Amino acid sequence: MPELDVSPLAPARFPTLPVIPGLRLAAHAAGERYRRRADLTLAELAPGSTIAGVFTRSTMPGAPVVWCRKHIAKGKARAIVINAGNANVFTGRQGMDDVAATARAIAGAVGCKPGEVMVASTGVIGETLSVDRLVRAVPSLHAKLKTQGWLAAAKAICTTDTYPKGASAEAEIDGQAIRIAGIAKGSGMIAPDMATMLSFLFTDAKLPAGVLRDLLQWANSRSFNCITVDGDTSTSDTVLLAATGQGPKHARITDAKDKRLASFKAALLSVMQDLAKQVVRDGEGASKFITVSVTGAASARAARQIAMTIANSPLVKTAIAGEDANWGRIIMAVGRAGEAADRDGLSITIGGVAIAEHGHPHPDYREEQVVPHMRGREIDIAVDVGVGRGKAVVWTCDLTHGYISINADYRS
Amino acid sequence: MPELDVSPLAPARFPTLPVIPGLRLAAHAAGERYRRRADLTLAELAPGSTIAGVFTRSTMPGAPVVWCRKHIAKGKARAIVINAGNANVFTGRQGMDDVAATARAIAGAVGCKPGEVMVASTGVIGETLSVDRLVRAVPSLHAKLKTQGWLAAAKAICTTDTYPKGASAEAEIDGQAIRIAGIAKGSGMIAPDMATMLSFLFTDAKLPAGVLRDLLQWANSRSFNCITVDGDTSTSDTVLLAATGQGPKHARITDAKDKRLASFKAALLSVMQDLAKQVVRDGEGASKFITVSVTGAASARAARQIAMTIANSPLVKTAIAGEDANWGRIIMAVGRAGEAADRDGLSITIGGVAIAEHGHPHPDYREEQVVPHMRGREIDIAVDVGVGRGKAVVWTCDLTHGYISINADYRS
Repeated sequence: MPELDVSPLAPARFPTLPVIPGLRLAAHAAGERYRRRADLTLAELAPGSTIAGVFTRSTMPGAPVVWCRKHIAKGKARAIVINAGNANVFTGRQGMDDVAATARAIAGAVGCKPGEVMVASTGVIGETLSVDRLVRAVPSLHAKLKTQGWLAAAKAICTTDTYPKGASAEAEIDGQAIRIAGIAKGSGMIAPDMATMLSFLFTDAKLPAGVLRDLLQWANSRSFNCITVDGDTSTSDTVLLAATGQGPKHARITDAKDKRLASFKAALLSVMQDLAKQVVRDGEGASKFITVSVTGAASARAARQIAMTIANSPLVKTAIAGEDANWGRIIMAVGRAGEAADRDGLSITIGGVAIAEHGHPHPDYREEQVVPHMRGREIDIAVDVGVGRGKAVVWTCDLTHGYISINADYRS
Repeated sequence: MPELDVSPLAPARFPTLPVIPGLRLAAHAAGERYRRRADLTLAELAPGSTIAGVFTRSTMPGAPVVWCRKHIAKGKARAIVINAGNANVFTGRQGMDDVAATARAIAGAVGCKPGEVMVASTGVIGETLSVDRLVRAVPSLHAKLKTQGWLAAAKAICTTDTYPKGASAEAEIDGQAIRIAGIAKGSGMIAPDMATMLSFLFTDAKLPAGVLRDLLQWANSRSFNCITVDGDTSTSDTVLLAATGQGPKHARITDAKDKRLASFKAALLSVMQDLAKQVVRDGEGASKFITVSVTGAASARAARQIAMTIANSPLVKTAIAGEDANWGRIIMAVGRAGEAADRDGLSITIGGVAIAEHGHPHPDYREEQVVPHMRGREIDIAVDVGVGRGKAVVWTCDLTHGYISINADYRS
């Protein structure tokens, strides 16, 4: 793996994340693939913790995804273990055995059932895990657990990421202050139609697994499912949301539609959108962060499809890399999205400058108007396709020489 | 537009193409966009010629596509005019007026109705055509018509292409020798789910337009619709097949299923596959020509979807650019294609070397076995997904720094 410069779109620093009562974190250098860095991460959850997850829709899911899908159905977890460097994908029966062995080792250290251990892996596909090495590392890993292990954990789950990603928010339920915090990793093989890359979210609220599941799906469809780097969906995408119930006591909640969850929902969405955007900001080779807003579509689904087609177009992404407000390529992408769009009702703005309106280049548009915007780090594209009221927002990055350099060298 | 080196995948030379009785070609420098090169092309067809076409499925088609769709329904044409440099797309009412003016000027010179003139344009999107310049150039263009104008025409329709593309074949109908020849252009904005870039095919056979239409659709689905460079579908894709009926007299054919067309169908398919592959070989920045064969899918449609997902994956394409037999990314692409695939029945070969078999890395596989193949110009990927009998072949190229350089600079 080449040494990569930190993305120019990276946040200034890793945020200060709160202690979540009932959660401890640890990271350890198990040496599975990387040298001189931690690559094995453990999140220990207090007894009684609930959990929900969303996973890749790939038909070739990794063994850890298969394991989690099976065991998360019960909605309970005591630990999450993550290894970076080997995805344990396309490893057949051996891969499943290796996940089980890892879960057993963690369960032994934490004092729970193997089925209460969720497992996630990221890295090379098609290589068998050095599972003995992982199992041997478990006692040292467990010994490192602490309540303020955020930065170490956020770093240890990275692969081609150039910076660690974390976010948090406060909420209240029933007048009680609740915390939500999480970490994420991802920078390539980031795509639509997915449950996303790896992200682990924690709260000290006390919420049944069914409620967590509904909240997670709601927020995921507005955050991680709205990003794309290269349109390639990973075999290992996993987002887990765990609730320790160790925060201040609050009223019993049994339905995600409960109005007392309004603040919690907003906070959860803000954490997940923050992390999702951080993944895009670390997109392989990214030099620009791009927001694509589509309005006037036949439905929200159609709007998302059009926005994703624009966001995944190599021609649009390379034009932006070249700081060229090449709106003809945006029209091309709208045209190929396959959704209803009215050529003679189409409008485009870039950076707030009206470029095309009602099917024509805007009469006042001069290219120099958008030059300062195109030279910036944050590019805003808004398209109204003129047929209905459906709208969607998608976040992506540009396509540069950096993406080619990273992916023609690094084996993932 | 930057000066581009000729693709390393280019054929050694432009082929010698036969005279097609009833067809004359001309190219002229109208100066619409390019300097010091011909950019306006005319194909004149003998009275009685029939024609069929397939066009982009984009919902934002260019004005010339709208014009052709309307007029080709009658199945008759006396001329095809093509301009390079300006696609006449997203130009509203003015764009339609400009196509009509161009067709009228050509009709005047050739002596036919404007509706018997097919028009195709390629180049920048969203700029109004300098139609007066084109109309003024028509007499000079018409004066240059000759029976052996192939190379000049093949060059004049190019934009970012690095070499002109032509192909021909001989066939027989009813014992009579028939000729088929054609030209094509395209190197970026080349994608699936389309009718393709520009290609113009001619034969001296005498065939009704309905038969031509069926033959063209049959061959197109096995040639231009099996290629992709960047997954981006153009707003201007057009393939026209014209029959002058000026070759040796043969039996009257009224049905594309007529057994006497067997040789003609094979020849047409060979010309169209040759041209389609030449478009891929001129893919922007291409350094490798890639054949993706998928077998064992639930249906031919599913196989094509899986093959296209592999062929459009930026991670697969960059790995090949880096001469890395990164089969994990092939598995990722199969997984995200959304079609039935059996993880434990999956097999992959690259360059004939068995890499994965029945869901496991092949026990005898060593990476050095495929190194010579990966260093070559022609890469063969074969995937069996182990669920059925559907199969498909797709042709594509790798994704290199050259693609980024071309597209971050050139405005298309």
